[in-house]
Amino acid sequence: MMPAGGAEPRAEAMAELASIRHELLTAPQMADWFEAAAEELGTSSGADEWQQANLVEMRRSWLQATAVPADLVKAQVIAGARCEHGWRTQRANNDWSGFLTNFEPVVALSREEAQCRQAASDGAFDTPYDALLDLHCRGDNQALISQVFARLKTGLPEVLQQTMEVQAGRDRQMPAGPYPVASQKALCEQLMSTLGFDFDKGRLDVSAHPFSSGVRGDQRITTRFRNDEFLDALQATAHETGHASYESGLPHAWTGLPVGQARNMSIHESQSLLFEKQIFGSRAFAGFIINQIHETFDATRVLDADALWSSLTRVEPSYIRVEADEVTYPLHVMLRYDIESALMNGQIEAAAIPELWDQSMQQYLGLSSADDHARGCLQDIHWTDGAFGYFPSYTLGAVNAAQLFSALKREFSDWDTRLARGDVSFIRDWLSTTIWQRASSLDSQSLMQQATGEGSNPEYLLQHLEARYVRESY
Amino acid sequence: MMPAGGAEPRAEAMAELASIRHELLTAPQMADWFEAAAEELGTSSGADEWQQANLVEMRRSWLQATAVPADLVKAQVIAGARCEHGWRTQRANNDWSGFLTNFEPVVALSREEAQCRQAASDGAFDTPYDALLDLHCRGDNQALISQVFARLKTGLPEVLQQTMEVQAGRDRQMPAGPYPVASQKALCEQLMSTLGFDFDKGRLDVSAHPFSSGVRGDQRITTRFRNDEFLDALQATAHETGHASYESGLPHAWTGLPVGQARNMSIHESQSLLFEKQIFGSRAFAGFIINQIHETFDATRVLDADALWSSLTRVEPSYIRVEADEVTYPLHVMLRYDIESALMNGQIEAAAIPELWDQSMQQYLGLSSADDHARGCLQDIHWTDGAFGYFPSYTLGAVNAAQLFSALKREFSDWDTRLARGDVSFIRDWLSTTIWQRASSLDSQSLMQQATGEGSNPEYLLQHLEARYVRESY
Repeated sequence: MMPAGGAEPRAEAMAELASIRHELLTAPQMADWFEAAAEELGTSSGADEWQQANLVEMRRSWLQATAVPADLVKAQVIAGARCEHGWRTQRANNDWSGFLTNFEPVVALSREEAQCRQAASDGAFDTPYDALLDLHCRGDNQALISQVFARLKTGLPEVLQQTMEVQAGRDRQMPAGPYPVASQKALCEQLMSTLGFDFDKGRLDVSAHPFSSGVRGDQRITTRFRNDEFLDALQATAHETGHASYESGLPHAWTGLPVGQARNMSIHESQSLLFEKQIFGSRAFAGFIINQIHETFDATRVLDADALWSSLTRVEPSYIRVEADEVTYPLHVMLRYDIESALMNGQIEAAAIPELWDQSMQQYLGLSSADDHARGCLQDIHWTDGAFGYFPSYTLGAVNAAQLFSALKREFSDWDTRLARGDVSFIRDWLSTTIWQRASSLDSQSLMQQATGEGSNPEYLLQHLEARYVRESY
Repeated sequence: MMPAGGAEPRAEAMAELASIRHELLTAPQMADWFEAAAEELGTSSGADEWQQANLVEMRRSWLQATAVPADLVKAQVIAGARCEHGWRTQRANNDWSGFLTNFEPVVALSREEAQCRQAASDGAFDTPYDALLDLHCRGDNQALISQVFARLKTGLPEVLQQTMEVQAGRDRQMPAGPYPVASQKALCEQLMSTLGFDFDKGRLDVSAHPFSSGVRGDQRITTRFRNDEFLDALQATAHETGHASYESGLPHAWTGLPVGQARNMSIHESQSLLFEKQIFGSRAFAGFIINQIHETFDATRVLDADALWSSLTRVEPSYIRVEADEVTYPLHVMLRYDIESALMNGQIEAAAIPELWDQSMQQYLGLSSADDHARGCLQDIHWTDGAFGYFPSYTLGAVNAAQLFSALKREFSDWDTRLARGDVSFIRDWLSTTIWQRASSLDSQSLMQQATGEGSNPEYLLQHLEARYVRESY
C-alpha cells in the first residue's frame, strides 16, 4: 500500500528500531542476567520446560547479537548494498566479472562473520557454514543436510527421468484467458477461506513477489496476478496461506518471547509447501477446486479436474529456480548448497562459481547455461548481501512437508475423500498439535521426531514425487 | 487496511514505543544536557535561530513528559478508558447520570494534571487550563482565545441571522444519486491532484471518520462515502489535503526534530480549513470543479456552478457540531470552550454541564436540546478521556484561515480567476513560505504576525462569512 515516498522514512524507522533493539540486547548487564536466570531455573525443582527452552532461545539471540563486531556488520551492510545495487544491472548485462569485483568482498566479510559466530558458539558449530545455517535453519546443520541431500542427489534424477517419459508428448490444455484480476483475487480469497485463513485476522494483497508477513492477529499475505493465467496466483496463495497459518497457530501464551516463535525456516517452508504441494497440488483437492474455478471463469469449463491436475503437475527442467516445478526445484537448491557451503568453509573461491554452476546444471538437469549468467549464477539475489545458509531451507522444507503429510495420511486413511470435498480442518488440527503449538520449545529434528517418529528423512519426498509424477496415483 | 485482529498487537506495539520514548525523554541525564546545551548556544556567537528554537521545543517536550507523575498518567488512562467505554452506550441511552459517575474522576484527574503542568512551567501558564491548551494550541493561551471568541460571540449571531434571511425559502437542488463509490473516489483523487497532492508521497483511503496521518514522504488521508451524496466526501478530502500539505511542506532539513514539526493545532486546522473553506468552498473554485463533477456523474449536469455553490454554502443551525456549517460551527466550539475552561479552572463542576450546555445552545443557536443529551453534551468523544484544551483549535483555525486567505487575496488580486481555472499553486507557494517552511521556528502568534501583519484577529473570519453568506459575493 505504501507510496514510493514512504520507502525512505520507513527504512529510517526500521533502522532506528533495529538500533534500539540491538542496544537492549547487548546491554552490559545481560551476561549477569543470563547467569542468574540459568541458576534460578536450574535450582527451581520442576522448572517449566518452556521456560528452559525460552532461556535457551534468548541466549541464542543474545549470542547472535554480540558475536559479530559492529564494524564488521557495518562493512557488510555497505558491501552488500553495493553488490546488490550493481547486480541489478550486471545481471541484465551478463557481467560476471563486474559482479565478481563487488562480490568478493561480500564473501570475505561473510566468511569473517561465520568465523566470529563459530568462535562465539562454545563449540556448537562444526564448520563456519554451520554458524550461518544457524541464523536460518537453527538445528539443521551441515552434517544433516549433506546426508539428506546425498540421498536426493541419487534418487531425484531417476524420478525426473521417469516423469519426463510419462509426460512426453502431452499438451498444455489451459484456455488462454483473459482472467480478470478482480475475479482471480476473489478466487484466491475463496481458496484461503477453504484452507482455514481467518479474514478477521489477516488480508490478501498484491506484490511483485508473493510473501507472508505480519503479527499475531494480523497476517498479511500477498500474491501476484497475470491476465492470461490464474494457477500461478492460486499456488502462491496456497503457499503463503501455509506460512500465515503457522504464524497464527503459534501458542498465544508465548507471543513476543523467543520460545513462542516459529521454529526455523526449514519448518516454516514445510508448512507453506504442505499447503501448496501436498494439499492444493493433490489430485483430490483438484476435484474440489475445479468447481470454484468453473464458477469464476466460464471459459475453464472445458477443463475437468484431470486436466487441471495435469497442468499443476507439469514437469520440465529449466534454468530458473523460482520457475521450477516440484521435481526439479530441489536440484536447483542442492547446486546452490554445494557452492555456498564450500565457499563459506574456504574450500573454493568465488571466481570458481560459474564453472561449478554449469557442471552441476549439466549433471542434475541436463542443461548448460554456459556463459549466460543471467540464467545461471547471477539469477538469485540471496548471495548479493551475504545471505548464505538460507537456500537449503527450501528443500529441507519440501522433505519435511512430504514426511509430515505421510504421517498424516497414516493417521487419516480417508484424507483424500476429505480433501475432495474441501475439508482441511483435520490437517490444520493435526499441524496445530504437532507443529504450530510447539513453536520453538523443541529443536527442529525433535519436532519432526515427535510429529512423525523420525528426523528429516528424504525417502518420503522421493516416495511422494514417485507416486505423484511417475505413478500419477494422487 | 488493518483487519480487526490487528488492533490488539498494534496497541501493544504503540504502548511499547510510547514507553521507550518516555524512558528516553525522562532519562536522569537530560537536565544536565539541557543546561549544557543552553550554555553552549548562549555563548556561541551567531547561534542559529533554528537551533535556539529547537532547544526551546525540546525543553518543552521534556517538561511535558516529566511534569506529570507516572501514577497520575496511569490513573488517567484507566479512568479515561472506563469513561469512554461507558459513554458509547450511555450516549445511546441518554444516560447523563451514568456518564457523570465515570466522568467526575476524569475531570478530577485532568485538573490534577493541569495543576502539575502549571506548577512545572516556571510561571509560563496563568491558569491550569492554559497548561492543557499548551498541549494542543501551544502559544495560543486562554487570554488570547477569550478575546478572539468574545468578538465572535457578538458578531456571529448577526451574520447567522442575516444568512438565514438571505437563504430563506431556498430548496436543495442536488440530484439524489446514486453516486458509485469508485467514481467518487476517482473524483476525490482528481481534486487532491488539483490541490497539489503528490500521489508518489501519499494515498487516499476510506475510514469511518476522515483523518490525516503519516510521515514525511507518505501522507495518508482518508474520507468516507455515501451512495446518495458526494459533496461530503469531496469537502472532507479538501480538508484533509490541507492537513497533509502542511505536513509534507515542513522543512526537510529539520525532519524528526521538534522545531521541524507543525506549529500547533490552531495553525494545522487553519491549513485544512483554508483548503476546505477558502479554496474548495469558494464560488470561483465551484466554477472549476463543476466540470469534473459533470464528467464523473452524468446526473449532475442539471446543476450549474451556482447551484453547486448554493449546496456548499447552505447554513442551518443544528444540534451536532460535526454536521455544522461554516457559520454555526464556531458557536458549537465556543460553547464547549466556555465549559471546559471553567471546568479545568475549578469555576464549575461537571454536574452543571447539561444546564450550561442548554443555555448556550438557546443563546447561540436558538435551539434547546433540553434533556436529549445525545444531541447535547454527550455528543463528543473529546472529554471522555480528558482531552481538554483541544476544542478551541477548530475555531482559532477558522480565524487564522480567513486571515491568511485575506492576506493572500491582497497579494494576488487575480486570485479568483486563478481558482476558477483550478490553479492553486500560487496559494501553495505562499503558504509554503509563510507557514510550512517556518514549522515551529516561531510561536503561533509570531507566525500569524509575519504572515499577515498581525496576530489572530477575528475580524477576518467575520468579514469572510459576511461576504460569502450575506452578500454572497464569493
